[in-house]
Amino acid sequence: MKKINIAIVGLGTIGSYFYNFISKNKDAISKKTNVIPNIIYVCARNPKKKRLFKIPKKKWAKKYTDIVKDKNVDVVVELIGGSDGAAKDLVIKALLNKKHVVTANKALIAKHGDKLSKIAEEKKVNLEYEAAVCGGVPIIRSIKEGLIANKIQKVYGIFNGTSNYILSSMDQNKLQFKNVLIKAQRLGYAENNPESDLNGEDVASKVQILSSLSFNSFINKNIHIEGIKNIDMDDISNADKLGYKIKLLGFSELINNKIYQRVHPTLINKSSYIASINGVLNAVIVNGLPVGKSVIQGEGAGPSATTSALISDVSSILRGNIKYPFVISNKKRKKLHSGNISKLSFSAYVRLDVKDKHGVLSNITKTFSRFKVSIKRLIQNPAKSKKNSSIVIITHRALDLNLQKTLKILSKKNYMIKKPKLIRIENN
Amino acid sequence: MKKINIAIVGLGTIGSYFYNFISKNKDAISKKTNVIPNIIYVCARNPKKKRLFKIPKKKWAKKYTDIVKDKNVDVVVELIGGSDGAAKDLVIKALLNKKHVVTANKALIAKHGDKLSKIAEEKKVNLEYEAAVCGGVPIIRSIKEGLIANKIQKVYGIFNGTSNYILSSMDQNKLQFKNVLIKAQRLGYAENNPESDLNGEDVASKVQILSSLSFNSFINKNIHIEGIKNIDMDDISNADKLGYKIKLLGFSELINNKIYQRVHPTLINKSSYIASINGVLNAVIVNGLPVGKSVIQGEGAGPSATTSALISDVSSILRGNIKYPFVISNKKRKKLHSGNISKLSFSAYVRLDVKDKHGVLSNITKTFSRFKVSIKRLIQNPAKSKKNSSIVIITHRALDLNLQKTLKILSKKNYMIKKPKLIRIENN
Repeated sequence: MKKINIAIVGLGTIGSYFYNFISKNKDAISKKTNVIPNIIYVCARNPKKKRLFKIPKKKWAKKYTDIVKDKNVDVVVELIGGSDGAAKDLVIKALLNKKHVVTANKALIAKHGDKLSKIAEEKKVNLEYEAAVCGGVPIIRSIKEGLIANKIQKVYGIFNGTSNYILSSMDQNKLQFKNVLIKAQRLGYAENNPESDLNGEDVASKVQILSSLSFNSFINKNIHIEGIKNIDMDDISNADKLGYKIKLLGFSELINNKIYQRVHPTLINKSSYIASINGVLNAVIVNGLPVGKSVIQGEGAGPSATTSALISDVSSILRGNIKYPFVISNKKRKKLHSGNISKLSFSAYVRLDVKDKHGVLSNITKTFSRFKVSIKRLIQNPAKSKKNSSIVIITHRALDLNLQKTLKILSKKNYMIKKPKLIRIENN
Repeated sequence: MKKINIAIVGLGTIGSYFYNFISKNKDAISKKTNVIPNIIYVCARNPKKKRLFKIPKKKWAKKYTDIVKDKNVDVVVELIGGSDGAAKDLVIKALLNKKHVVTANKALIAKHGDKLSKIAEEKKVNLEYEAAVCGGVPIIRSIKEGLIANKIQKVYGIFNGTSNYILSSMDQNKLQFKNVLIKAQRLGYAENNPESDLNGEDVASKVQILSSLSFNSFINKNIHIEGIKNIDMDDISNADKLGYKIKLLGFSELINNKIYQRVHPTLINKSSYIASINGVLNAVIVNGLPVGKSVIQGEGAGPSATTSALISDVSSILRGNIKYPFVISNKKRKKLHSGNISKLSFSAYVRLDVKDKHGVLSNITKTFSRFKVSIKRLIQNPAKSKKNSSIVIITHRALDLNLQKTLKILSKKNYMIKKPKLIRIENN
C-alpha cells in the first residue's frame, strides 16, 4: 500500500494527542483511505521536554525549515498557532515547496487565508483547515461537500466553547463571571490567557472563514466584534425572567449582495434550538437553498475533537481528493462589499443603572423616542440601596445606528451610575 | 470544461425538482466541481404527463434499458423507488455497464446494498446514496469524510419526518393521531400510503445503512421494529406529566462487538436535545472516539432537501472522488454478529388499562416482581366511567426480555381492558 509522509510542527496538547492517535490508528486510517499515514518528522520548540510517550530520535527535525525542503515530506501539519510569525512562515514555505498543509490555526487562515490559498492553488496542493473552525463539528467539509448544492444566505451559531461554558455556567449555577472563569481554567475549558476567547476575536476569525466559504468570496475584514466580559449575573437573570438566554453568537449574512459579519452577546428565546446548547459545545447553523436550515453540533475544541478534524483533513489528502481551499478557484472567488452592523435592525435589551430621582424615567423615554427607538417593555427594579434603580428595556426593532446613538446620549447623563448596556436580540 | 452526462430515471416530485435545479444551477455547480453537469436523458413511466416545465423531446429515453447501454451516459440517477423491481434492475445494469449511480432509495440500499456495493467496487464506479438517509442532513458524507477518524460506538436519532411531525403535533396541539395524520397528508408531510413511515420500516432501512457505514460491517438484517400507531394522546400527556416527550427513534449500537439495532417509540427527557427536534426535522447523533458526540440536524425529506443531497452525490462524482460505497473495501468489511433487543436493559413506561376492582393492583405488582422488574413510580388514574382505571408505571432498568415477559403475562389477565403498552425510556 502507498505511504504518505507527514511532518508535525508544534507538539503542544493538540500536537501530542494527534501524534499518538495517528501512531495507534494507522491500520484503521489506511483501511479507509488506501494509503498508510506515516509520521516521518516532528518538530517543536522544546524537544527535550518530558512527554507522555516516546518519539524515536530519528523523527525529530531540528528546524521546520529543514522539513519544508525535505523531498520525502508529503504533508505538513502546522500546530504552532498565531496568525503570523513561525506559523505563517512555515505554511508559506511548505506550500511553495509543494507540500500539502493541514492546519488548526484559525487566526492564520482568517488573516492570510486568501494569500495562502492562492499559493496552494498555484502549486496544486491542498490547504486544509477543518480543525480551525469548531473541531468536532465537521462544518468546513459539510459546506464544501455535503451542502455543495446550496446557495447559502446565512451562517451563524455558537463558535467558542470557553464563552459558552462561562455563560451557561453563570446561568445554571448563578455564579459571577470571575468565579466561573477560574473554574473553567481549572477544568481546562479556558486557557491561562483567555483574552481572544472572551473578547470575541476567536469567534470573529471563524465567522470570517465561514463567510468566505459560504459566499464564495474573499475574506472580508469588516466585522463588528463584542465579547462577553461585560455580561454579569444581573443581565443573565433579567434575560431569564424575560424568557431569554444570553449566548455569544457569530453571524454572517448576505443581504443585497453585501456581507454583514458580527460577533456579540445575543438574547435568544429560551425555547430556541441555540438556547439548548450548553457547556463547551459549539453549533453551526446554515441557511441555504435548497436545503433549508441545516445544523451541526459538537465539541468545539480540545485535543480529541481537534484530532478528529485534523485526521479528516489528512484523509482527504490521502484519498487524493485535491480541491481548492475555499471550494472554488481563487480566480472565481468574488470580492463582495461589506455592510456595517449600524445599518441592520434589531430588537434590543437595554440596561440602565440610574440614580433614583424625579424625572429620570421621563428623560430616558424621551431620549429613546428622539432616535425613533420605541419601547416594547420596561421594567424598573429598585436597587438594594433604594437610592438607585436598574431599568431594563426591551425595544421594538430599530436601526442599530439609532440604538447606538440612544446609548451614547444616555451614557452622558449625570443620572447614570454605570455605562448603559445594549444586548441585541435574535428572533429565530 | 469537461462535461459529465447524467440520466435521470423517475420523474416524480423529487425527480422533477432535481431536473429543474440542475438545469438552473449548471454554472454554480461547475464552478465548484470544474465539470459541467449535463442532463442527457430522462426516463419516466408516463412521459406524456403534464409537467410544470418543458423537457426537450430529444432528452426523453423510451426505456431505462437503453440508457444503461448508452456509451454517452456517465451517471444514472435512480429515483424510481422500491427495494426491488425496476429500481433494482436499473441500478444493477447501470453499475455493470460502468455507470456511476446516485440513488435516493433507502429500501434498495438497506436490502441489496452489499450486493450493489460489490458490483460498484468491481466496476470501479461510484454508488452514492446520501439522499437515501435524511436528505437535508449530510450524514453519509460526514461519516465517510468529516468524521472518518472516528471509531463509532452508537448512532441514533430521529430519522422519519412524518412520524416526528405527527408525534410533535399531537403533543403541541393536543390532537388525536388520526386527525393529525389527515392534516399531515393535506400538508404533504405524509404520503397517501404512509404505512412504511408509521410502522417504523422507513427508519429501519436508515438504521441498517448507518450501522453498516458506522461499524464497517455488512448490512445486518436483525432489527427490532415498532412504529407509532399505538401511541395515543393519553400516552403523550402521561409522558408530559412525568417530564418526558415521546419520539420515534432509531438506534444502532456496537456492544461487545455485536450490533444491536432497534426502532421504537421512546420516552426521552424534555430537557434533552432530541426532545427539542419537532415537526418534520430529522436529527442524527453519532457517538465516536475521538470526536465525542456529534449531531447533525436538518429537514429529512421533501424535494428540496433531497435535491441538496443528490447534488452533493453528483458533485462528489464530478470531482472524481471515487470511493467505496461503504467507506472501506468490501473485502475488508466485517460480518458482525447481532444482538437481540431482549438482552438489553431499559427503564420503561408501562400503561395498563384495567377494570377497577379489588386485588388488581396487588396482582400487577406481583407480576412485575416475579420477573424482577422493580417499579420506580406508579400512578393510578380513574377513568371517566369510574369502573376502569389507567395505571402508569415507570420501571427501574430491567432486562428487556423480562419487561416483555411481564407484559405478556399481564395481557392475559381478565382485568385488562386493553392490550398493555410498553414504551422504552432512553436516558441521555
